[in-house]
Amino acid sequence: MKISEIEEIIRRHSAGEMNAAEAARKIKDLSFEDIGYARVDHARAYRQGFPEVIFGEGKTSQQICGIFEKLLARGPNVLITRTNENVYGDIRNIYTDAEWHESARVIRVIRDKTELGVGEITVVTAGTSDIPVAEEAALTTEAMGNRVKRVWDAGVAGIHRILSERELLQNSRVVIVVAGMEGALPSVVGGLVAVPVIAVPTSVGYGASFGGVAALLGMLNSCASNVTVVNIDNGFGAGFVASLINRKMMVDG
Amino acid sequence: MKISEIEEIIRRHSAGEMNAAEAARKIKDLSFEDIGYARVDHARAYRQGFPEVIFGEGKTSQQICGIFEKLLARGPNVLITRTNENVYGDIRNIYTDAEWHESARVIRVIRDKTELGVGEITVVTAGTSDIPVAEEAALTTEAMGNRVKRVWDAGVAGIHRILSERELLQNSRVVIVVAGMEGALPSVVGGLVAVPVIAVPTSVGYGASFGGVAALLGMLNSCASNVTVVNIDNGFGAGFVASLINRKMMVDG
Amino acid sequence: MKISEIEEIIRRHSAGEMNAAEAARKIKDLSFEDIGYARVDHARAYRQGFPEVIFGEGKTSQQICGIFEKLLARGPNVLITRTNENVYGDIRNIYTDAEWHESARVIRVIRDKTELGVGEITVVTAGTSDIPVAEEAALTTEAMGNRVKRVWDAGVAGIHRILSERELLQNSRVVIVVAGMEGALPSVVGGLVAVPVIAVPTSVGYGASFGGVAALLGMLNSCASNVTVVNIDNGFGAGFVASLINRKMMVDG
Amino acid sequence: MKISEIEEIIRRHSAGEMNAAEAARKIKDLSFEDIGYARVDHARAYRQGFPEVIFGEGKTSQQICGIFEKLLARGPNVLITRTNENVYGDIRNIYTDAEWHESARVIRVIRDKTELGVGEITVVTAGTSDIPVAEEAALTTEAMGNRVKRVWDAGVAGIHRILSERELLQNSRVVIVVAGMEGALPSVVGGLVAVPVIAVPTSVGYGASFGGVAALLGMLNSCASNVTVVNIDNGFGAGFVASLINRKMMVDG
Amino acid sequence: MKISEIEEIIRRHSAGEMNAAEAARKIKDLSFEDIGYARVDHARAYRQGFPEVIFGEGKTSQQICGIFEKLLARGPNVLITRTNENVYGDIRNIYTDAEWHESARVIRVIRDKTELGVGEITVVTAGTSDIPVAEEAALTTEAMGNRVKRVWDAGVAGIHRILSERELLQNSRVVIVVAGMEGALPSVVGGLVAVPVIAVPTSVGYGASFGGVAALLGMLNSCASNVTVVNIDNGFGAGFVASLINRKMMVDG
Amino acid sequence: MKISEIEEIIRRHSAGEMNAAEAARKIKDLSFEDIGYARVDHARAYRQGFPEVIFGEGKTSQQICGIFEKLLARGPNVLITRTNENVYGDIRNIYTDAEWHESARVIRVIRDKTELGVGEITVVTAGTSDIPVAEEAALTTEAMGNRVKRVWDAGVAGIHRILSERELLQNSRVVIVVAGMEGALPSVVGGLVAVPVIAVPTSVGYGASFGGVAALLGMLNSCASNVTVVNIDNGFGAGFVASLINRKMMVDG
Amino acid sequence: MKISEIEEIIRRHSAGEMNAAEAARKIKDLSFEDIGYARVDHARAYRQGFPEVIFGEGKTSQQICGIFEKLLARGPNVLITRTNENVYGDIRNIYTDAEWHESARVIRVIRDKTELGVGEITVVTAGTSDIPVAEEAALTTEAMGNRVKRVWDAGVAGIHRILSERELLQNSRVVIVVAGMEGALPSVVGGLVAVPVIAVPTSVGYGASFGGVAALLGMLNSCASNVTVVNIDNGFGAGFVASLINRKMMVDG
Amino acid sequence: MKISEIEEIIRRHSAGEMNAAEAARKIKDLSFEDIGYARVDHARAYRQGFPEVIFGEGKTSQQICGIFEKLLARGPNVLITRTNENVYGDIRNIYTDAEWHESARVIRVIRDKTELGVGEITVVTAGTSDIPVAEEAALTTEAMGNRVKRVWDAGVAGIHRILSERELLQNSRVVIVVAGMEGALPSVVGGLVAVPVIAVPTSVGYGASFGGVAALLGMLNSCASNVTVVNIDNGFGAGFVASLINRKMMVDG
Repeated sequence: MKISEIEEIIRRHSAGEMNAAEAARKIKDLSFEDIGYARVDHARAYRQGFPEVIFGEGKTSQQICGIFEKLLARGPNVLITRTNENVYGDIRNIYTDAEWHESARVIRVIRDKTELGVGEITVVTAGTSDIPVAEEAALTTEAMGNRVKRVWDAGVAGIHRILSERELLQNSRVVIVVAGMEGALPSVVGGLVAVPVIAVPTSVGYGASFGGVAALLGMLNSCASNVTVVNIDNGFGAGFVASLINRKMMVDG
Repeated sequence: MKISEIEEIIRRHSAGEMNAAEAARKIKDLSFEDIGYARVDHARAYRQGFPEVIFGEGKTSQQICGIFEKLLARGPNVLITRTNENVYGDIRNIYTDAEWHESARVIRVIRDKTELGVGEITVVTAGTSDIPVAEEAALTTEAMGNRVKRVWDAGVAGIHRILSERELLQNSRVVIVVAGMEGALPSVVGGLVAVPVIAVPTSVGYGASFGGVAALLGMLNSCASNVTVVNIDNGFGAGFVASLINRKMMVDG
Repeated sequence: MKISEIEEIIRRHSAGEMNAAEAARKIKDLSFEDIGYARVDHARAYRQGFPEVIFGEGKTSQQICGIFEKLLARGPNVLITRTNENVYGDIRNIYTDAEWHESARVIRVIRDKTELGVGEITVVTAGTSDIPVAEEAALTTEAMGNRVKRVWDAGVAGIHRILSERELLQNSRVVIVVAGMEGALPSVVGGLVAVPVIAVPTSVGYGASFGGVAALLGMLNSCASNVTVVNIDNGFGAGFVASLINRKMMVDG
Repeated sequence: MKISEIEEIIRRHSAGEMNAAEAARKIKDLSFEDIGYARVDHARAYRQGFPEVIFGEGKTSQQICGIFEKLLARGPNVLITRTNENVYGDIRNIYTDAEWHESARVIRVIRDKTELGVGEITVVTAGTSDIPVAEEAALTTEAMGNRVKRVWDAGVAGIHRILSERELLQNSRVVIVVAGMEGALPSVVGGLVAVPVIAVPTSVGYGASFGGVAALLGMLNSCASNVTVVNIDNGFGAGFVASLINRKMMVDG
Repeated sequence: MKISEIEEIIRRHSAGEMNAAEAARKIKDLSFEDIGYARVDHARAYRQGFPEVIFGEGKTSQQICGIFEKLLARGPNVLITRTNENVYGDIRNIYTDAEWHESARVIRVIRDKTELGVGEITVVTAGTSDIPVAEEAALTTEAMGNRVKRVWDAGVAGIHRILSERELLQNSRVVIVVAGMEGALPSVVGGLVAVPVIAVPTSVGYGASFGGVAALLGMLNSCASNVTVVNIDNGFGAGFVASLINRKMMVDG
Repeated sequence: MKISEIEEIIRRHSAGEMNAAEAARKIKDLSFEDIGYARVDHARAYRQGFPEVIFGEGKTSQQICGIFEKLLARGPNVLITRTNENVYGDIRNIYTDAEWHESARVIRVIRDKTELGVGEITVVTAGTSDIPVAEEAALTTEAMGNRVKRVWDAGVAGIHRILSERELLQNSRVVIVVAGMEGALPSVVGGLVAVPVIAVPTSVGYGASFGGVAALLGMLNSCASNVTVVNIDNGFGAGFVASLINRKMMVDG
Repeated sequence: MKISEIEEIIRRHSAGEMNAAEAARKIKDLSFEDIGYARVDHARAYRQGFPEVIFGEGKTSQQICGIFEKLLARGPNVLITRTNENVYGDIRNIYTDAEWHESARVIRVIRDKTELGVGEITVVTAGTSDIPVAEEAALTTEAMGNRVKRVWDAGVAGIHRILSERELLQNSRVVIVVAGMEGALPSVVGGLVAVPVIAVPTSVGYGASFGGVAALLGMLNSCASNVTVVNIDNGFGAGFVASLINRKMMVDG
Repeated sequence: MKISEIEEIIRRHSAGEMNAAEAARKIKDLSFEDIGYARVDHARAYRQGFPEVIFGEGKTSQQICGIFEKLLARGPNVLITRTNENVYGDIRNIYTDAEWHESARVIRVIRDKTELGVGEITVVTAGTSDIPVAEEAALTTEAMGNRVKRVWDAGVAGIHRILSERELLQNSRVVIVVAGMEGALPSVVGGLVAVPVIAVPTSVGYGASFGGVAALLGMLNSCASNVTVVNIDNGFGAGFVASLINRKMMVDG
C-alpha cells in the first residue's frame, strides 16, 4: 500500500467525500484481500519488492492454479516452489510459457527480465545432491532480476575444486553456499570473499546428520564472520535475501 | 595480499632475481605471519574489507595487548569484543583514546570515520536485556564506516512500539533485530521492510528458552522471507554482515 | 458421579437395605463401566462438564461406532476427532444427522445448542495450513455451547492482517491462537488483549521446525504474560479449555 | 490508551486545534514512554488489566527502584519478581509498607484489596521444593484481586494427599498445579475438577529431569483435557492467567 | 553350560581321554553354536532361566521357523515377539498348537505350565492403546511360569479407576505399569504398593510426546522410589524381569 | 494406615461413638500429618516397607534435623541422603551413634539389623568415580536389612576384572550395576546372571557423555533382557528396589 | 595429480612451449573434470590411495552406470555402495563379472587382488542385524587389498562369544566393531587388543536407541582408549580407514 | 599377562605343584591388583602397549601420587592428564625430572625415548584456543615413542594457512586435527592426505556450538572418507590411537 494512496483517501475524507468508516475500510482493502481461507497480501510487493510466491507443498493443484491466476494478473514474474509435474500440467493450461524446473521442483513465469542487481550472485553447492536446493535459490534470484553463476559439486574434501573458482567468487556481490553433511563449505568460501555469504544447510546426509541439523550447526558456528544462515533446504529464502542485497536501489529511494 | 604484490614477485622470479623456492616463501609471507600460537592473517583485510577483530574471551590481557599493538600499526580502526574493564586499563596505556563500551564489553579505536555505506543500518532489540548484544552489533557497524540508528525495547507483546518506528525501518538499507525469549520480532520487522533483516538470537530468557535455542529456532523458521540468522549472541557477526551489505562498492571494483 | 447419588446409597446402607459390600460396588459402578478393553468414565461429564470425546486415531471404525452409540445414548452432543470419511459413512448409519468436517477430520453431533458461555471465543491462525487444527478447536467450542469467531491467515509477517482484527479480539472472552513455523502470533495477540490466550503449536513447517517444536518453544517463551500452551496440534484441548474459561457458571454452583 | 482519549485528540485535530503531526505524536505518547533503555508501556494496564510487573533478574537495584517509583505513582498494586533482600532494603526506603516474600523472592505492594474474582483460585504443589514457584503464583493472584487457597506437598506418590483435598479443588474457579520431577500431578488434578488447570513445571529434580524438561513434557502430554502449560518456573505467568480467567467481568464490558 | 558338564570334560582330560585342545573345543561347544549368521547361545537358558526368545522384527519367516524348530527341540516353552500372522501360518505347519496373539503380535508355545512364581504379577495400562505392549509383557510372564492379572485403561486422569484396584495391586509380588503420553501412572501405582514396579513407556501419544520420550522421562523421574524403567515399548523386557523377581528360588539354589 | 485401624474407626462410627465427619478426619489423620510446608506421609512405611528417607539436597540443617527427630521416633533405621558433614555435626547432637559416610554423602542410623532378605545383593561399579553413587545404593540396602557385597572398578575395558567375580554375581539375588561413560557394564553382567540387574547411570564422564545421558541410553538399550534402569546417579532408588526384590515375604502375607 | 606431471607442465611453460594461462588450465584439468552436475575428482586416487567410490543412494541407475564406466576405465577395482539389484542388472550389461552382495547392498569389481596390507583386518558384529553394515566394511577392505576375518553375532550379553575369539582379535592389525543398541562391544574389544579399533554404530534398535544415537554416544564415551568412531551405519568409512591403517607403505614413500 | 606365564602356572598344576584353586588365584593375580578403590590393570601394558595413564580429574593429589609411584616402578614413561600445578608440586617430590605442561595440564615422565613409529604424526589445530587439547594429544604421542609435528591456528576461514602445510601433512603417517566451532578442518585435511585423520572436536565456541556438539557432528558427517572421530576434548585418546597406527610392528609379532 503506497503512502500516496492512503493520503488520497484521507484527503477525500477531509473533503467530506466519504465518512471515517468508509475511509478505514478502503485503507484496509488496499493492503490485503480476505478470500476465506487466505488473506492475500497485495501490499507485500510494495513492502518487500516481490509479490508473494506460492509455496506449493500441501496445496491442491486447484488452489495453486487459483492463486497463480491472481498473481499473474498483478505482476510479470511468478514463482511456484515445492510443486510437481502434475501441477505444471494444469498451470500450462493457464499460461503456456510457464517453465518447469524438474530438479528444483519449481514452476516459473518470467515476463520481465529487467536487470535489477548491482552485481552477480553466485550459487555454490558442496555436492551433487545439494543441487535441487541450490537451483531453487538460483531460479528465485533470476526471477527477481539478477544475473546468476552456478558452481556445482565443489565440497571441501577436494579443496582445489572451490579454490579454482576463487576469482569468480571474489567478483560476486553475494554468494549463496548450499551444503549438507558437515556444512563446512560456507566457512571456506566466507574466508575467500569480501561479500556476504548466505549459507543454506540441506537435509542431505545420513546417520548423525539428523536431517540437516549437523550442517545447520556447522554453519551457525562458522569461523568466517560474513556468513548468515537460513533454514534447512530453504533455497527460496536464500535467493530472496541475496536479491535484496544485490538490489540497485532501495524501494523508497 | 594484493594481486599486484604477487605479480611483482613472479615478475622478479621470471627476471631471474630470485628462484622458485624464494618466490614461494615470499608469497606465503604476504598472507600471514606465524607467531607461534597464532597465524595472524594479514590478508584478511584485503579479502574481507576489515582487519581481524580480537575476540577477547579466553585470552589474557597480555595476549590481547600484543595483538592490539600489531593491528593498531596496520589499520586505523580496531575492535576488541567480549573483554572487560581490566583489559581496557592496559589498552589505554598503549592508546589513550581507546573507547570502553561497558554494556557491550567492547574496546574500540576509531581513527578513520569515512562513511562507507550507501544507507543507514538500524539495530532493534526486543527487550532491554538484549541491548548488550545489540550494542556489539552497532559498535561494529560504526567501526566499519556506517551510520547506525538504535531502537531499543520494541518487543512484539506491545506491537505499537515497533509499529511507531515503521518509517525509520523502511528507510534503512539493512535491519539487525536482536531478540531472546521467543525470537518473534524479526518476523514482524521482516514483514514491514523491503531490505535484508539479520536476526540475532540472544541467550536472554529462562526455563525452556534453553540459552537462546528457542529464539534461534523461531528465527530460522521465520515466515518472513527476508530474514537470515547468525549464532546466538553473535552481535559482532550481525554487524559485520550488515556492513558488507551496506558497503558502497565492492573491493575489487 | 453426583454426591447426592452417593448419599442415597449410603443412606440405604445405613437403613440396612444393602450391606457394605453391595454399597461399595454400587458406588464404584456409578463412576465407570469396565468393558474389557476400556473403562468408560461416566463420571467425567459430571467432573469436567462434557462427556468423553472419541479420539479416533488408532481405533477401528467398529470400535468407534460402538463407543459412539453409548455416548449418543447418554448426552446430546458427541465429538469424534482425528477420524476419516470412511468412519463417517458408518456413523451416518447410526445417526443420520451427524456432521462431517473434512479439514478438521471431525465427526460431530450437536443436538443441544444452548449457549453456555459468557462471551465469545475467537480462534486465530497464522497461516492457511494451520486451519485444520484451528477448526478442531472451533468445532469443539461450538459443541460445548459457545459462540465462535474465526480469523484465518493472519500471521505476523503481514502484521496489519492481525491488527485489522484488533477490535474483534478485544471483545472476546478467550482467544485461541494456532500457529506453526516460529509460533510468534500468540505473543502479538497476547499483547493486544486483556483475556487469556491459549496457544496451539502446529506441526506445520519444514527444516528446523522439527515437527512443531520450534513453534512450541516460541510459545512457551512468549513475552506476553497471558499466554498458556497446549500440545502440538492439540486443537481439541485448546477448545476444551477455552470453553471451561468461558463457561457461565461453575458446575457445583 | 483509552479509545475516549484518542477520540478527544482526533476531535481537537478536526476542530483545527492541532495539526496532523501533533495529533499523531500525542496518540503515540499515550501508549508508551521512551526512556532510553526501555519503552515503558503505559497502555498495558488498559490492554491487559494489570500494570507491568518488574522482572528483577538482571536489573540493578537502582533500575528497579526507578521503575518501581513510576509504577507506584500510576497504580495501587506493584509486584517485583525474581529479586532479593538487598533490593527490598532499597525499596523500603521508597515505600515502607512494601512486603518481602523470602521463598518466592517477591516484593509486593498491595494498597487496593478489592476482590475482582468470581471464585477462588487454588495453588497446589507436588513437593516442598516446588513452593517458591507456587508462592510466586499465589502472590500474583492476590495482588490482582483474588482469594487464594494453598495446598502444599501433595504429590502423586502419596495419592491420598491430593484426594483429601478433592472438595477444595472442585470448588475452585481455576487450579494452578506446580510440579517438578515427572510432572504428573496436573493430570490427576485435571481429572478431578471441571475447571481449567494451569500446569507449571519446575526445575526441581536431578539426573534426567533436565532442569524441568521432563516435567514440561509430562504436562504437555497430559491425558487430562483441561490442562494448559506455562514455561518452566513461571509462577508469575500462571498466576496472571489464572487471574484473567477468574475475573468478574471483561474490561470492555 | 552347567558346571557339572565342564567338570566331566576336565575329568576326562585329566584321565587322559582327550587332550587340552579337544577339551577346550568341547567346553566352547557347550555354550554356543556358530551357525554362520548367528551364534545360538545355548548357555543362556542355564544362565538366565529361560531360552532365547526370537525377536521377529527384521527376520524372514524362513529364518524364524529355522530358529523356532531348534528352540522347540530344546525346551517346552517358546516365544516369538514382534512378528505377524503370515509367520504364524508357517509356524503352525511346524507345531499346530502354537498360539497367535494378535494385539501383542506374539506367537507362543506353552507346553510346561508349572507355576514357578511366589506370587502374582499384575500388568496395568494407562490407556487402551497401551494394551499391545502390556500383552507382550503378560504373555511373557505366563510363558515363564507366572500367574498374571490384567488391569487395562486405568490412567491417572480418572484416578478412581486405578484406586478401585488398590487391593489387587497390593497383593501382587511385582507390578508392571505400561503407559504412554505423560507416563504418570507408575508414580501413582508406586505410591500404592510395597513391591517393585516396572515401568514401560510406550510410543503412544502425539505432538511433544516424541515417540515415547516424554513418558520415558516421566518414569525415570518418578517421585516413587520403587520404580525402575525399561526401554520404550519393551513389554518383553518388563515381563522377563518381573518373572525373575517373582521366581520361587534361585537357579543355583 | 492399616486396614484394622480403619475398621476400628468405622466400627466406632457404626456404634454411634463418633459421627461421620469425625470418622472421616480420623481416617485422614492416620495417613499423613500436614505440617505446613510438608505432608509427612506416615502411611508410607506401611505401604512401602520403609519409612520416608530424607533427601537432603535443598533443605537447611534445621529442617533436616526436625524431620530426623520425628522419623527417629517412629522407626529404628533412618537415612539422610545427599547431605554434608555440617549437617552430620548437628545430627550427632541429636543421636550420637549416627554414622557419616563421606563418599556417599549419607548419614545413617541403624538400630535394627534383622536380616530381611532371601539372598545377597551385589553392587558393582565400572570405575572408581562411580563409587559414591554405588555406596549410596549399598548403604540403603543394608539399612533395609540386606547383606551386601561390593565389587568396585570392574569396567568392561578390562573384561577379566568382572569375569573374575562371576561366581559372586551368580550367587546374588539381585545385582546393582553402577556405571558412567558408555554404560556398558550392565549388559555384560546381565548376560552372566539369572537374576534381575538394576542399572544406575552416573554423571561421570566428559564431552559427549552429556552428564550421564550416554550411559542412560546405553542401559535402556541393553541387549540383556534382565536389566532395568533408574535415574542418573539415583543410587538410593536402586538400593530401595533391590531390597524390595530381595525381601523374604510380602507385607500383606 | 602427480607432482611429476605438474613439473612437466611447468618445464614446458619455462621452455616457452605454452603460456601461463595454458599451463594453469592444464594443471587444473589434471585434478578434476567438470561434467556439469559433478566435478569428478581424478586426483583423489593419488591423494587418498583409492579412486572415488560411487555412493548409490539418490542416484539413478543411468547416472551410476555412467560414472561406473569412467571409473572402470581408470582403475581395476570399483565399489558401488547403497545400491540395489536393479542397478546390478544394468551394471552387468557393462561388466559381466561384477559381484552383487545382497545383504550389504554393494556392487563390486575386483580385478586386482594384490595384497597391500601388513596384517589382517577383523570385522566383528554385536548382532545378526548388524551384518549388512559390517559386510559393507569387509567388502571395502577386500577391494582395497586386505585380508579380512569376519566374526558375526558376538554381542556382550553373551560375553563368552567374543572371548572365544580373543586370539583372532589379538592377531589383527585393525579391528572394526559394528554394533547397534547400547554399542558396548567396541569397549570390550578395545580392552582385549593392542591395535586401533574402529567403532561403527548402527541404526539397529528400537525405542530409546534413536536410530543409532545411543550406540554412537556409547562408542564416543568408550572407556577403552584405542577406539575411534565413524558415522552411524558408515561401514564403508570404517573399511576405508582400516585399509589406510593396514597399508604396507605410504604413498609418498 | 603373558601366555607363557599362564602356561607355566598350568604346567606346575599338572605337575601337582599346586591345586586348581591356587592356580586360578595366581592366574588372576597376574592380570590386576585389587587395591580397594581400584583394580590396577597390570595386564593393560601387555594388551595395549602402554601402561595405564592417570586421568587426574576428580582424584586427590594423594591418590594421584600413590598411583604415580606404582606406575613409575613398572615402566619408564608415565602420563598424568587433566591435572594442575599443585599436583605437579607433589609429584616433583617423588620424581624431580617430571615435566609440567601448563597449557595441556599434563604431567609427564619420559625416561625411554626409543622411537617406535614408522613415520611422523602431525597435530593440527583450527584455532589458538584448540591448542590445549592438541598439546595433550602431542604429548601423548611423544610419550609413546613418536616424532610429532605441530601446526597451530590453521582454520578453514583462512584456507591458505592449511594449504601452505600441505607437504608436511602428506608426509605424515597419521594426522590429528583438533577443532571447535564448526569442526570443518578435518574434512579439508582429509581431502589433502592419503593417511588416517583422527578428528578431535573441542568445546571451544559459543552460542549454538553446544559445548562441542556442533564440531562433533560436523566431524562425524565429514565428506572425507579417511576421518574417524574421538570424544569432545579427548586429546589423549587421539594421541593414543595415532600412536597405535604409527607403531612399527604389532605386539604379538
